[in-house]
Amino acid sequence: MNHKPLKLIEDLETAVAPARVLTDSDSLQQYGRDWTRFHTPAPLAIVLPSSVEEVQAVVRFARENQIGLVPSGGRTGLSASAVATNGEIVVAFDRMKKISNFNPIDRTVVCEPGVITEQLQQFAEEKDLFYPVDFASSGSSQIGGNIATNAGGIKVIRYGMTRDWVVGLKVVTGTGELLELNGGLVKNNTGYDLRQLFIGGEGTLGFIVEATMKLTRPPENLTALMLGAEDMNGVMSILKAFQQKVDLTAFEFFSEQALSRVVEHSQVQRPFDTPTPFYALLEFENTSEAISDTVMELFEHCMEQGWVLDGVMSQSISQLQNLWACREFISETITRWTPYKNDISVVVSKVPEFLAEIDNVVNREYPEFEIIWFGHIGDGNLHLNILKPDSLSTEEFLQKCNHVSKWVFEIVQEYVGSISAEHGVGLLKKDYLTYTRSEAEIDLMRGIKKVFDPDGIMNPGKIFD
Amino acid sequence: MNHKPLKLIEDLETAVAPARVLTDSDSLQQYGRDWTRFHTPAPLAIVLPSSVEEVQAVVRFARENQIGLVPSGGRTGLSASAVATNGEIVVAFDRMKKISNFNPIDRTVVCEPGVITEQLQQFAEEKDLFYPVDFASSGSSQIGGNIATNAGGIKVIRYGMTRDWVVGLKVVTGTGELLELNGGLVKNNTGYDLRQLFIGGEGTLGFIVEATMKLTRPPENLTALMLGAEDMNGVMSILKAFQQKVDLTAFEFFSEQALSRVVEHSQVQRPFDTPTPFYALLEFENTSEAISDTVMELFEHCMEQGWVLDGVMSQSISQLQNLWACREFISETITRWTPYKNDISVVVSKVPEFLAEIDNVVNREYPEFEIIWFGHIGDGNLHLNILKPDSLSTEEFLQKCNHVSKWVFEIVQEYVGSISAEHGVGLLKKDYLTYTRSEAEIDLMRGIKKVFDPDGIMNPGKIFD
Repeated sequence: MNHKPLKLIEDLETAVAPARVLTDSDSLQQYGRDWTRFHTPAPLAIVLPSSVEEVQAVVRFARENQIGLVPSGGRTGLSASAVATNGEIVVAFDRMKKISNFNPIDRTVVCEPGVITEQLQQFAEEKDLFYPVDFASSGSSQIGGNIATNAGGIKVIRYGMTRDWVVGLKVVTGTGELLELNGGLVKNNTGYDLRQLFIGGEGTLGFIVEATMKLTRPPENLTALMLGAEDMNGVMSILKAFQQKVDLTAFEFFSEQALSRVVEHSQVQRPFDTPTPFYALLEFENTSEAISDTVMELFEHCMEQGWVLDGVMSQSISQLQNLWACREFISETITRWTPYKNDISVVVSKVPEFLAEIDNVVNREYPEFEIIWFGHIGDGNLHLNILKPDSLSTEEFLQKCNHVSKWVFEIVQEYVGSISAEHGVGLLKKDYLTYTRSEAEIDLMRGIKKVFDPDGIMNPGKIFD
Repeated sequence: MNHKPLKLIEDLETAVAPARVLTDSDSLQQYGRDWTRFHTPAPLAIVLPSSVEEVQAVVRFARENQIGLVPSGGRTGLSASAVATNGEIVVAFDRMKKISNFNPIDRTVVCEPGVITEQLQQFAEEKDLFYPVDFASSGSSQIGGNIATNAGGIKVIRYGMTRDWVVGLKVVTGTGELLELNGGLVKNNTGYDLRQLFIGGEGTLGFIVEATMKLTRPPENLTALMLGAEDMNGVMSILKAFQQKVDLTAFEFFSEQALSRVVEHSQVQRPFDTPTPFYALLEFENTSEAISDTVMELFEHCMEQGWVLDGVMSQSISQLQNLWACREFISETITRWTPYKNDISVVVSKVPEFLAEIDNVVNREYPEFEIIWFGHIGDGNLHLNILKPDSLSTEEFLQKCNHVSKWVFEIVQEYVGSISAEHGVGLLKKDYLTYTRSEAEIDLMRGIKKVFDPDGIMNPGKIFD
């Protein structure tokens, strides 16, 4: 470290408080990156503010000294949005995790950005309410990060993305200014809804320093239905039939390749004996006999039509959990094959064709690759996973996967889909952004960034250059 | 009309097509304003484009000639956002009303901006689906206008605002550029969601030229419950109790003053004999005995607690319609008293105090004024109406109401509420915008406008100067 950083760090400590600044190499490593592992963390320092004023002080300091700032939440991101590779100051929100101002009539609660997703879910439960955005990393991801990346997950079909649960936002922009956006109102048609820009903005416009989150009534008697289908068109027909009659809380899918790996490598049981190419996992609130009857009728209809080859419905909470385990253990199970992963989406109706086209190109070019499909099919969101063949070194595999990415994104573009359904762009996908957003849109985004962050200090280099 | 406009109009006709341009004084009057009547229309000309290309041609023409453009939908707006007072070209979408590309799996449909709300509602019904955004002007308001003003209405508590139903948007910005935003995707985390800026942007960033709208399953066996309450705290307690157990499709309220006028001046019957100061109108899907039982238990609980003094539940569609008529006829009934109107919101839990404070100041300053309250209380959205006393001329009344507006907006600010819950800002409320949005926010909005509309030709002078 040369003299300039040393002086800078002293000044930073003066601007915030010495106890808030970390510069040891373990901290720089830990706070300098997210769950992606493609970049080498190299931040200047880590700041752990404990108040909005301290966040503002860091931003003003960074602006005066023209240093980049990288926000850091639970660091569970999968697109290298919370990665500091270039001497930035990382602002981590671990010290700001208070939940306050719960209001039972509004069903809202105020969260500091460092509140862990699970902490909010538990808080809601204690109040006989429900925070519905849920995903694999809920135990460590933070609300600020969830909002900045507009996190999705397994209940989007019923409850939407994180965007739909943010009724108020306090942010500090790139000028150090504090904005209080929307204050928890349901209806507020007074000009541009600036809150929406910070949701999914990946910290490039400013820091989220407080959020008012909406809660809802808890679901009752959740029941799952696992259906085995011959092909993806069957899965689509099942979706259409059920959506017309039942309010689904989830509609997930995965392939036999996925299920067989889970069954082989974990305690999870096969839901029924018949292996089928694809499985749909539906969940709904089983609150009356009328609903049970409707679901059974739909199930029989799907069998008669040949869309469903076999199926099972959970009769207890433990059976519900077992069915979910088939889906939830996939990601963990396949890590041993150091898989290539991609998170993409198209409109729901195009999924079968889209999936087949990707299958085709990968099978043709790299017949030794095994594809594991799963995802939130009710939202058109597919998680593409390719297992590394033992015959290839990691490097060879990654090199081939770069080609796969390009083919996949070309198909995404052809289908007017998204190169990142729920994981964001960060550093990982910015070179591919034009496959989903036009040059004109990217220019407009740059223009908007300049309005909020005239010096370009907020998470520089993320989403676009 | 001097020579310059004549030449301009000739050029405009060349740029678009003569048949698309109207300049007769009836058309200028008709297309030059919305439902507000405070401004004198004075547009240069009306253009009725029939394609995206024609819209782009008008924008390029306006940009070259530095002429303002005003969008015009169904002209049912209540904040003078679609009013041309200053030699602008009005772009009306009456010729662009095609519905196309319905997809039953995605449950989406593509609308040109001139599609009437009711036309979309009927289209959905024919497909056994439902477009849930509904309000008094559904018979003439257009989808483009609904989106530009983020229209709300009577089902927001269950279905949200128009914002929640727009899955794709094509817009023409102030440079004439066509943007295709989000293409109908459920999940698309690839940078700033520009679509959100155009929703509720009141045409100040660009024109909406196509929208992909989401549909949903139709509600089943809708049933209404009308409850009479002693005071607003009772109404709040009813809301809290019901929301915990039942998915409400509406939660409206109105005062005895409102109901008595409706009963007196229309065919509508009182729902029950006991007059009570306030009424809550709840609606839900009555799809099983379990739900009916829950609702009856809640009703009895509310009676025991003293929150409800009397009540009635609809047993048929005609009874459902009669109960709704009590609420829906209010606006029409009170027009004979040329009422002052204001559309404001606070967070739901603050409504009783907020309403009382406005009552107090108006009663104290103008004891001769009669206030009629009604609104979408489940969203914290109040419609304040004050009847003109016979003793005052319209001019005297309006003058006094200007004072009322100021007091109301001061109270809105104190309660961190919105000066426009669902009607937008337009010309009518722009002078009051700072009561809800900070100067910093307004500056940022100006910055954003400059990015999309560098010459300031898109609906100039609306929302802010």
